[in-house]
Amino acid sequence: MLDKLHEACGVFGIFGHAEASKMAYLGLYSLQHRGQESAGIASADGTRVRLVRRMGHVADIFDEATLEELPGHLAIGHTRYSTAGESKLTNAQPILIDCVHGQIAICHNGNIVNANEIRERLVRAGSIFQSNSDTEVVLHLYARSQAANFVDAIVESVTQLTGAFSLALLTAGHLIAVRDPHGFRPLALGRLGDAWVVCSETCALDLIGATYVREVEPGEVIVIGQDGLRSIKPFPPLPLSHCIFEHVYFARPDSEVFGESVNEVRTELGRRLARETAVPADVIVPIPDSGVCAATGYAEETGTPLRFGLIRNHYVGRTFIEPAQAIRHFGVKVKLNPVKSILAGQRVVLIDDSIVRGTTSRKIV
Amino acid sequence: MLDKLHEACGVFGIFGHAEASKMAYLGLYSLQHRGQESAGIASADGTRVRLVRRMGHVADIFDEATLEELPGHLAIGHTRYSTAGESKLTNAQPILIDCVHGQIAICHNGNIVNANEIRERLVRAGSIFQSNSDTEVVLHLYARSQAANFVDAIVESVTQLTGAFSLALLTAGHLIAVRDPHGFRPLALGRLGDAWVVCSETCALDLIGATYVREVEPGEVIVIGQDGLRSIKPFPPLPLSHCIFEHVYFARPDSEVFGESVNEVRTELGRRLARETAVPADVIVPIPDSGVCAATGYAEETGTPLRFGLIRNHYVGRTFIEPAQAIRHFGVKVKLNPVKSILAGQRVVLIDDSIVRGTTSRKIV
Amino acid sequence: MLDKLHEACGVFGIFGHAEASKMAYLGLYSLQHRGQESAGIASADGTRVRLVRRMGHVADIFDEATLEELPGHLAIGHTRYSTAGESKLTNAQPILIDCVHGQIAICHNGNIVNANEIRERLVRAGSIFQSNSDTEVVLHLYARSQAANFVDAIVESVTQLTGAFSLALLTAGHLIAVRDPHGFRPLALGRLGDAWVVCSETCALDLIGATYVREVEPGEVIVIGQDGLRSIKPFPPLPLSHCIFEHVYFARPDSEVFGESVNEVRTELGRRLARETAVPADVIVPIPDSGVCAATGYAEETGTPLRFGLIRNHYVGRTFIEPAQAIRHFGVKVKLNPVKSILAGQRVVLIDDSIVRGTTSRKIV
Amino acid sequence: MLDKLHEACGVFGIFGHAEASKMAYLGLYSLQHRGQESAGIASADGTRVRLVRRMGHVADIFDEATLEELPGHLAIGHTRYSTAGESKLTNAQPILIDCVHGQIAICHNGNIVNANEIRERLVRAGSIFQSNSDTEVVLHLYARSQAANFVDAIVESVTQLTGAFSLALLTAGHLIAVRDPHGFRPLALGRLGDAWVVCSETCALDLIGATYVREVEPGEVIVIGQDGLRSIKPFPPLPLSHCIFEHVYFARPDSEVFGESVNEVRTELGRRLARETAVPADVIVPIPDSGVCAATGYAEETGTPLRFGLIRNHYVGRTFIEPAQAIRHFGVKVKLNPVKSILAGQRVVLIDDSIVRGTTSRKIV
Repeated sequence: MLDKLHEACGVFGIFGHAEASKMAYLGLYSLQHRGQESAGIASADGTRVRLVRRMGHVADIFDEATLEELPGHLAIGHTRYSTAGESKLTNAQPILIDCVHGQIAICHNGNIVNANEIRERLVRAGSIFQSNSDTEVVLHLYARSQAANFVDAIVESVTQLTGAFSLALLTAGHLIAVRDPHGFRPLALGRLGDAWVVCSETCALDLIGATYVREVEPGEVIVIGQDGLRSIKPFPPLPLSHCIFEHVYFARPDSEVFGESVNEVRTELGRRLARETAVPADVIVPIPDSGVCAATGYAEETGTPLRFGLIRNHYVGRTFIEPAQAIRHFGVKVKLNPVKSILAGQRVVLIDDSIVRGTTSRKIV
Repeated sequence: MLDKLHEACGVFGIFGHAEASKMAYLGLYSLQHRGQESAGIASADGTRVRLVRRMGHVADIFDEATLEELPGHLAIGHTRYSTAGESKLTNAQPILIDCVHGQIAICHNGNIVNANEIRERLVRAGSIFQSNSDTEVVLHLYARSQAANFVDAIVESVTQLTGAFSLALLTAGHLIAVRDPHGFRPLALGRLGDAWVVCSETCALDLIGATYVREVEPGEVIVIGQDGLRSIKPFPPLPLSHCIFEHVYFARPDSEVFGESVNEVRTELGRRLARETAVPADVIVPIPDSGVCAATGYAEETGTPLRFGLIRNHYVGRTFIEPAQAIRHFGVKVKLNPVKSILAGQRVVLIDDSIVRGTTSRKIV
Repeated sequence: MLDKLHEACGVFGIFGHAEASKMAYLGLYSLQHRGQESAGIASADGTRVRLVRRMGHVADIFDEATLEELPGHLAIGHTRYSTAGESKLTNAQPILIDCVHGQIAICHNGNIVNANEIRERLVRAGSIFQSNSDTEVVLHLYARSQAANFVDAIVESVTQLTGAFSLALLTAGHLIAVRDPHGFRPLALGRLGDAWVVCSETCALDLIGATYVREVEPGEVIVIGQDGLRSIKPFPPLPLSHCIFEHVYFARPDSEVFGESVNEVRTELGRRLARETAVPADVIVPIPDSGVCAATGYAEETGTPLRFGLIRNHYVGRTFIEPAQAIRHFGVKVKLNPVKSILAGQRVVLIDDSIVRGTTSRKIV
Repeated sequence: MLDKLHEACGVFGIFGHAEASKMAYLGLYSLQHRGQESAGIASADGTRVRLVRRMGHVADIFDEATLEELPGHLAIGHTRYSTAGESKLTNAQPILIDCVHGQIAICHNGNIVNANEIRERLVRAGSIFQSNSDTEVVLHLYARSQAANFVDAIVESVTQLTGAFSLALLTAGHLIAVRDPHGFRPLALGRLGDAWVVCSETCALDLIGATYVREVEPGEVIVIGQDGLRSIKPFPPLPLSHCIFEHVYFARPDSEVFGESVNEVRTELGRRLARETAVPADVIVPIPDSGVCAATGYAEETGTPLRFGLIRNHYVGRTFIEPAQAIRHFGVKVKLNPVKSILAGQRVVLIDDSIVRGTTSRKIV
């Protein structure tokens, strides 16, 4: 029932900047590759939290007028990954509620595995859920917490969760970042003048001119307010467990993820692939865009020329109309077209970053 | 006054296919890089011409329902290039009119240099223009022609034009392709089973599974109907004059343009650049996406490694909101981000396909 | 904080009709005069409750496609009255939630005076409210009820309320009607073949061809399901207290309200006004549309001719743009225009149904 | 082919007012009953003519922002009557063109009976028509006129027309009013301070505080510019021929039309009906709203009480969804509901203003 496949969402947060929602907008734009279904920003000015979230791309959702509805010096933002059948606005993030502890907004990248169990317990006790997002359980735990202050209420809530969660939370006056004790999903901490920034990938820091400080550590809760940054470690230590798809598929090559350059990791994987499996070839061709780094490493290691023998159409929309009289390999052709002068009569090694079931790869070949 | 800068528009036409408007849709999708401002399709069924045109991308404009409004076995389509200040629906194409010769729709890639002069003459004689597109003069010449049949009326009209024009025209029962005698802009002829296709670039043939036959020749008028294809050469011979920007900037590398592979031309230009100007370097970095072919040629010729040290954000929208507190080189940063691990401490040769004024290149450097 | 001024909303419910949502649509259309801000319908098919609600008029919100999204044999609907500053979709009704007792939707006409008090108590216990409607407290009481079945849970919830409430509730398989023990707001029960209907005014019964059975009694809870209609009287008896504005202003003259014909009540009020206050006059002029019944009674009683000396523009929109160079009595002129040939040189008695502050009446005079 | 049934459109024009487009908006609002399909305003500032026209009601089309796009001291406006199958934006008015005489916009109430014939002649000569409105021929005649100035060109154009035409035309600096020599349709002239106003009915003068001067005379062309008002009579005299539907159906009772009060004409028709056809009755009931004046006259003449025994729902939309299980007399019931306490057991005389085929009247009875 819960909506489980948003592992690749993008999360951003900023505290202490005069144009916090504009910075969030730029950050989300850099994280657009982590989710194109919906996006949203919540901002606060010390008194009140405001929210805008819609279906679609960051550049289409936000304009000057929309960002003016989001004043204040702190903000969080989210880009959501599209999964079939669950594409609706109530599942978009941030989710904003008002409760006994005041207003709070949340952005989540990951998958809370005990969400169903917690939800059932809360519903039996009279809670009303508004979405089928696993993220909403965090807010209901928070609303029911009898803790003396909002920080204790957050700690009480997140320590009940198991699974993957890199969270950015926003109250009227505080930005809170949380990363699960396994460190499944990335979350970086940066600095922009006096402002603090958290984000899924460091490419979001580059665009706004912020500097990378460190990762939010696995199991760490960071609370940022007018009185500065405070780090809490409320989780018992657990073995680290980074998601391999971050490095081979989700992240941008210009990002640092889990403390390493994505480009270097991918290029080195290409080199290793060459060392383990090299075959004689005339030309190495990447499947754009994700296979480029690995193909570069493979070509370098084998000394074979790298050529862009497949051209990707970057204007592909969400859905595509196929003729009744079917075109062979239509789904692949819509995205990729071969450059005949590069491929014709050559022995070609095609390099991609990852294979899931191999059916698409077979068609491309 | 006239709207002059649509040199890079995409033109498509098909005759004799049961799903003509769907093929036009796919063709336009392949030609989306030649214009993202507006797009449109006109189709005909032997009796009546119908039109849909809107602002925006092909994938957003057309869905199943829209294409069902466009029945028939012949169709033409157009993608229009965005130019500041002239972005309005009445300038979108195809333009469809009804006149004494019946309905006719037109798609145009190029720039008619004597359009102002013809327009002024026609207005003095009582013609009412609906747009400020230079293309509209062709239709008014046609509507006023006293020629005995529509083919003669088209020939009479287009032979009065000077400048660049690759045209696709559609009547209730015929598809007509016209290319100016200089051959400024490309126009290819293809075959898909029994159907005939014309298009600005051959990548549109690849997607629909059509085969490339030949170029529409400079100065040629091709008329396609139930009785087959007929070629007319009504223009006096003029020196050929292909636009250099087609090969270095406009066209997709997987297309054939002016009878040559765009990829090969660009790669060879990179090789020549290396032979003429090579400097010692540790790494060759293309400015994506247009510089990739030339960088490949340059790297090969010099034996220096090719690395993707600049990552392009493919989600950039039409407009972008800049913070009040300006970010240095914001316009470039929004599109491109450096991969530090590739560039740091290296001697880098940056390769682009073309330089207009060099101001952007300076910022990228 | 709560949104208090929806006394004049329209409520409709139907159980046991093959086209339940279409009947609700027609019912709401008849009750459109009770609220033009927003409207909505929730329907159920024994298994699942579905909801459509939007800002605007019934005729603009619902079309064939929208009603097809609302299948099933039972439905409730609501038209909401517009009050300044509170016009937003989250306050539109029906409100639909899912909770431990399953899905439930609610429509409310009235004003719950202890809503703030109940809400504060529930928030302290961890409930998360989604709107600032007083109606939402009913749902939270229901979700937290530990009663053995949904009927007991409803009774437990509504008996905690004080104030005015005529409610229609919908679960997957039952329609429930509730009227507060004072009977502040009307709620009628009708029959259409085998189907049961509840509605704010009997004009909704007329349009769908249903017959009037009786009022839902003050303090009565009616539960209608496959096993028939069941009446519960869980409230202690309280003095009746009908709202006078129903007869003089809110209701349509062709409705029966509180068991009496609205037209007869208003006409009789006009007659009494004549008996109490008649002055010599040449012509009696009603302020359309609400003053027509009373003016008819007044004219009859005094034997003075009734003439329509003020014409109302029925196309007045929600907002109206006034010129910078102000027009005298603009707000009145926009709605009403005098017929000079009726009024000029005559002694005129103007009749309206009610006066609130008299400022508009002064301008009309 | 031509779109013939817009006899009931509303026309408005103003010259010499600082808020010309706002006055046109108010005028159109008063004339909304003459056409609810589409509306538009063209304004001019001495240099340039601008146009906004859309489908729908005046109050929905225009807001502050839209009216700011229409600056200048002169304006014309139009409300168009809805006729099945022809409801499209290109037939909306004003129609604005640019031609050898400069920009001109036109609004038309009436029906040009030789439009087809003129259109065919112009198309043979090379004119391109954009709509299937008969009004467009006036513009093509004007664009082709070789007259020395725009006034002569207008006179040359309108004197070629036969049929019904009350026109308002707008150039960059002049307002022109034209009425056909038969005087089929009304057109009134008014004064607002120094400004001149023309409009279909005088109720438009009342709202903006203008005074009624006289009718634009049958066969008169009025040209209003900075140099004042000039009257031309270019048509040969023809017998007057007012459309009877103006007084009995189209116009508002608070208007003067053809120099007479609509209310007085209708009331007198009711009196005459009583004198010619009176039958014994207990109550006289008007069919609202158009039958009210006649019923008042009839009731007065016969001395029988007038009662509002049918209530009209003023929220009826353009289309209405009927249940599959048909409701008897649904089309009538949607608009009208009987007041049982008035009608039950009484001898009723029902009064309407006009009968076309009598099928609806039969259902109402």
